[in-house]
Amino acid sequence: MEDKGKADSSTNPLVAVVMGSTSDWETMQHADKTLSEFDVPHECRVLSAHRTPMQSAEFAVSAEGRGIEVIIAAAGGAAHLAGVLAAHTLLPVLGVPMESKSLKGLDSLLSIVQMPAGIPVGTLAIGRAGATNAALLSIAILANSRPELRERLREFRREQERKVLEAKLP
Amino acid sequence: MEDKGKADSSTNPLVAVVMGSTSDWETMQHADKTLSEFDVPHECRVLSAHRTPMQSAEFAVSAEGRGIEVIIAAAGGAAHLAGVLAAHTLLPVLGVPMESKSLKGLDSLLSIVQMPAGIPVGTLAIGRAGATNAALLSIAILANSRPELRERLREFRREQERKVLEAKLP
Amino acid sequence: MEDKGKADSSTNPLVAVVMGSTSDWETMQHADKTLSEFDVPHECRVLSAHRTPMQSAEFAVSAEGRGIEVIIAAAGGAAHLAGVLAAHTLLPVLGVPMESKSLKGLDSLLSIVQMPAGIPVGTLAIGRAGATNAALLSIAILANSRPELRERLREFRREQERKVLEAKLP
Amino acid sequence: MEDKGKADSSTNPLVAVVMGSTSDWETMQHADKTLSEFDVPHECRVLSAHRTPMQSAEFAVSAEGRGIEVIIAAAGGAAHLAGVLAAHTLLPVLGVPMESKSLKGLDSLLSIVQMPAGIPVGTLAIGRAGATNAALLSIAILANSRPELRERLREFRREQERKVLEAKLP
Amino acid sequence: MEDKGKADSSTNPLVAVVMGSTSDWETMQHADKTLSEFDVPHECRVLSAHRTPMQSAEFAVSAEGRGIEVIIAAAGGAAHLAGVLAAHTLLPVLGVPMESKSLKGLDSLLSIVQMPAGIPVGTLAIGRAGATNAALLSIAILANSRPELRERLREFRREQERKVLEAKLP
Amino acid sequence: MEDKGKADSSTNPLVAVVMGSTSDWETMQHADKTLSEFDVPHECRVLSAHRTPMQSAEFAVSAEGRGIEVIIAAAGGAAHLAGVLAAHTLLPVLGVPMESKSLKGLDSLLSIVQMPAGIPVGTLAIGRAGATNAALLSIAILANSRPELRERLREFRREQERKVLEAKLP
Amino acid sequence: MEDKGKADSSTNPLVAVVMGSTSDWETMQHADKTLSEFDVPHECRVLSAHRTPMQSAEFAVSAEGRGIEVIIAAAGGAAHLAGVLAAHTLLPVLGVPMESKSLKGLDSLLSIVQMPAGIPVGTLAIGRAGATNAALLSIAILANSRPELRERLREFRREQERKVLEAKLP
Amino acid sequence: MEDKGKADSSTNPLVAVVMGSTSDWETMQHADKTLSEFDVPHECRVLSAHRTPMQSAEFAVSAEGRGIEVIIAAAGGAAHLAGVLAAHTLLPVLGVPMESKSLKGLDSLLSIVQMPAGIPVGTLAIGRAGATNAALLSIAILANSRPELRERLREFRREQERKVLEAKLP
Repeated sequence: MEDKGKADSSTNPLVAVVMGSTSDWETMQHADKTLSEFDVPHECRVLSAHRTPMQSAEFAVSAEGRGIEVIIAAAGGAAHLAGVLAAHTLLPVLGVPMESKSLKGLDSLLSIVQMPAGIPVGTLAIGRAGATNAALLSIAILANSRPELRERLREFRREQERKVLEAKLP
Repeated sequence: MEDKGKADSSTNPLVAVVMGSTSDWETMQHADKTLSEFDVPHECRVLSAHRTPMQSAEFAVSAEGRGIEVIIAAAGGAAHLAGVLAAHTLLPVLGVPMESKSLKGLDSLLSIVQMPAGIPVGTLAIGRAGATNAALLSIAILANSRPELRERLREFRREQERKVLEAKLP
Repeated sequence: MEDKGKADSSTNPLVAVVMGSTSDWETMQHADKTLSEFDVPHECRVLSAHRTPMQSAEFAVSAEGRGIEVIIAAAGGAAHLAGVLAAHTLLPVLGVPMESKSLKGLDSLLSIVQMPAGIPVGTLAIGRAGATNAALLSIAILANSRPELRERLREFRREQERKVLEAKLP
Repeated sequence: MEDKGKADSSTNPLVAVVMGSTSDWETMQHADKTLSEFDVPHECRVLSAHRTPMQSAEFAVSAEGRGIEVIIAAAGGAAHLAGVLAAHTLLPVLGVPMESKSLKGLDSLLSIVQMPAGIPVGTLAIGRAGATNAALLSIAILANSRPELRERLREFRREQERKVLEAKLP
Repeated sequence: MEDKGKADSSTNPLVAVVMGSTSDWETMQHADKTLSEFDVPHECRVLSAHRTPMQSAEFAVSAEGRGIEVIIAAAGGAAHLAGVLAAHTLLPVLGVPMESKSLKGLDSLLSIVQMPAGIPVGTLAIGRAGATNAALLSIAILANSRPELRERLREFRREQERKVLEAKLP
Repeated sequence: MEDKGKADSSTNPLVAVVMGSTSDWETMQHADKTLSEFDVPHECRVLSAHRTPMQSAEFAVSAEGRGIEVIIAAAGGAAHLAGVLAAHTLLPVLGVPMESKSLKGLDSLLSIVQMPAGIPVGTLAIGRAGATNAALLSIAILANSRPELRERLREFRREQERKVLEAKLP
Repeated sequence: MEDKGKADSSTNPLVAVVMGSTSDWETMQHADKTLSEFDVPHECRVLSAHRTPMQSAEFAVSAEGRGIEVIIAAAGGAAHLAGVLAAHTLLPVLGVPMESKSLKGLDSLLSIVQMPAGIPVGTLAIGRAGATNAALLSIAILANSRPELRERLREFRREQERKVLEAKLP
Repeated sequence: MEDKGKADSSTNPLVAVVMGSTSDWETMQHADKTLSEFDVPHECRVLSAHRTPMQSAEFAVSAEGRGIEVIIAAAGGAAHLAGVLAAHTLLPVLGVPMESKSLKGLDSLLSIVQMPAGIPVGTLAIGRAGATNAALLSIAILANSRPELRERLREFRREQERKVLEAKLP
């Protein structure tokens, strides 16, 4: 369980990015990078629903009190992390399905998105696009009460639009 | 495009529940019902990404200005509504895949969740559980700046827990 | 959380059958029935990985001390119950995927069987066949140190064989 | 949004090939190449249903007036481009599902082909074969009122047949 | 092989709707109905790629000479009809996958859409929506050289839009 | 359409191995090799259901008269070759689904195996194992009236068994 | 294990139809019926790869000596019957996947068709069409050395063709 | 059929690891390694349900008498080995689906897990994680009557937990 994020120690993280294994970092660094680009204080941790169940529960239970507003959880295969965290917190939880070796993330996706009524997890796309979009969706959530973040989102969209319009085919 | 919601006319809706067809109401009434149980001002509308593309765009563009904080979009098959609304707004957009006739919602799910990086949609489960959870997730998002909603969520969870613990097998 | 089993109160259960919802009983009664036919002391309970996460953890943590030797866990959709129990116990855990409404149990199956290395769940077939077989596999496990159970399994197989051989086509 | 096609500036394009990202060009160049081989005036552009929604709508709305007769749209993942363009035009729209990283184009295919009644998209195969065939189908459509194009299609088929008949196994 | 269509005998059909079995009529009548609503002369026939291969080939070979401009082919399971007709004609061929009993049309869809480069089939959605949209796409194709059809399509879209906008939720 | 087989020109082929493209040879050489090892006169050809439909039909119609007893047909994607040949012959037809680029042969498999009642195709596994087994199954069919072939099959099985029993793990 | 077939006791069966359970008879009666219509001596039996493994092996080992020329094996779910019989005989084995409750026969299909190189099973479609076609394919195999059967197949095809050509749409 | 295991000749194996092919060793060595780390006497063998059916049956029949307490069976594609062994023994049988070339183990998984009621197979994840977990589950089963093994499992879990907690993101 490690703390990795842009924010200096005097800033409380608003978003927690949790992943089931260090091998998920290759994908989830794109969530970290996007949050950093928007200067959103956040932390990145490894916690496993299966190998560290008690620490996962404690993390989720204490997140609200620590000022976290959104939890992003990434896992692959029988991906239970997002659901387990959601079961222990009232905060919005976003899930990112990791591309798994054999079934290419279809297992991860279904394990995360098909939650029963009562405990919601907002699920993003499999892999890197999902990692980036989990960060963007958490920023959109934070932006509801932070107008400056909404402005930065607006600029981000404009820049994104500009890149498509200027794209050159070979 | 119809306005249906518990809130009286003097209250601005905070959540918009949009669906591609009146036939989705059978499922999406569970989002409406959940939002009503939490006394969250909201509106329910029919808008189609394909049959009313301009009104869908206008709706999304104007939602922020009208005070909406979360958009819930439900559609089936080649389900483009959530993505199309998300393309036109900075608000958090949640997608609910409808169970489709032949492919049972697998097409709806993939059409909603596999968004490219840049435009996020938080996706819930196929069908009724997803409808209820989209409402609960939107409440969790609103609750970040509304402590009384968080308390109601806490009670909801406690009640939900109690029901499971008191369940009797035949 | 209810105790339902053939064993009278003076007998400690050897097998625990846990399911995520009372609606799973229609399927899981076949596990109960099979265990009863073999006179295996057991208990049947409703516990939800998502709605009663703490009670699920406590149940799993205490099962070993109560003399339980096998845990059978049934759930549907994003079926986390078997994995969550397995994370909290060293006992063998068997998972039974419930047939889900839209995806017919493919989601339940992948959510249960695709566990990461370190926390095993032995998974049975979707639905009723899986419920019966989870009971039979738990009996085979108990039979390793209970020769009389192995004899009863042998008779069960002989009877089963006889039924096939005597089957009449119309 | 870039104009790329064989036609010199004095010729109005009859077919528009639109793709969601420059990374689709590796596949869609086969549509471009086939149209060029048949000397069909055409244009190739990058437009995103999600990142440039307004320009996509404007493009579709104005295509008919510019003399375009067929629109080919290529996208991957939650592939909304073909459906979004079809919603804004009366021209025949053909969709080409891109092979996506994790789900290999099954998501792209279902997102394009499963359109609701009212807004049709004629869908081709995933990837390169689909790109070539979208060009050939647009030529078959144009050929309905251009006998010389039909003759060239006839020659193309004959040549294709000849190649198979002369194929040598090692 | 039967001729069924709205057009009186003095009008040559422009669209041919071919299906592999009379049991497909329940679905394909929606193509027939849509074409009739637009007063498009057309014919509906039963022809099987497998049970009447020679008549299927002859039909496709002769369609162009008879003035047909678009062929719609519907089949289920290992659905070869659209591909077989496309192999024998230069006309645009549209395929409609029938919902099959066990695999719900996924087999039909893949059998129709995954054509190799060289012989295109424009594929519509599984089942009734696909039947209606095949008719609409064939009308859009015909409309390229028939301005009055394009106007009727425009009215159809307006009416369709109106219906969505006037939809009332219960 | 090329003739490739072990048999010298004085021997009529008993088995025809037909494939949709020269690129299938990498896989289908294993059918050729197996038939050669059993000294079964056979021929290998490229014929496409879509690009050479008439030659495919002629081939199938004439196969019985040329003394062919089994036809093996290999194709990928919307794999119609086996079904088209079966429609034109009374001989037993075996189908081998090629591994396709995007969908890995699931499309090929369903396109071949899901034939409607009336025209059977005996389908083997996707790829190389299917190619080898199509040859072995055709040999088993021929062996019904050729006792010496059955003896060679018996030896083949014995040798195969021996290899497994002598296998050494590292 | 029951003997059910048209042939009187003085005629040795040429085809054996084996199924894993009496519940498969509803589907497999169509194989029985087709074989009877062609006056092919045959037997129908229930044998389970899992519940009567030794009798299944003995059946397969002795089939060749009893004059059987083709074995048809039907099973559902983890459908091992065809593969297990094929492992014990040199006769051609045809497999019919039963439609299973949850996965609709996709499990049955993959369990039968994906045999490893060395032991072939010719697989037919899921369900009733597969049952009929397994009978037709076994007749085509027998017909290689029985010209009168081939003639009857020819008549069957003609009749089948006639029915399609005379089909009337409502 | 080879004997490979850590145990010296004076120790009877408690677990048998059987695989269908030497090519499965790359995956199944992780079962072997895990069993060795826990000093569980075991053997590793190659046996094929299809190529060595009689030896497979004999192996399963005699396993109980030789003191084996758990059988682990690994196979790919139409993976019948676990079911065939389970049919011939009363011991608990665990199945490990191998990742297959085309369908990536989905075929292996369904062939193993979807067993009919009466003959259970406890199924683990596709590939390496499944191999490791089959070993861990067999150890959990043995541990029911071997307290020292349970202690070692407890240490293993603690160590595993420690590794996650100490994981450092780059």
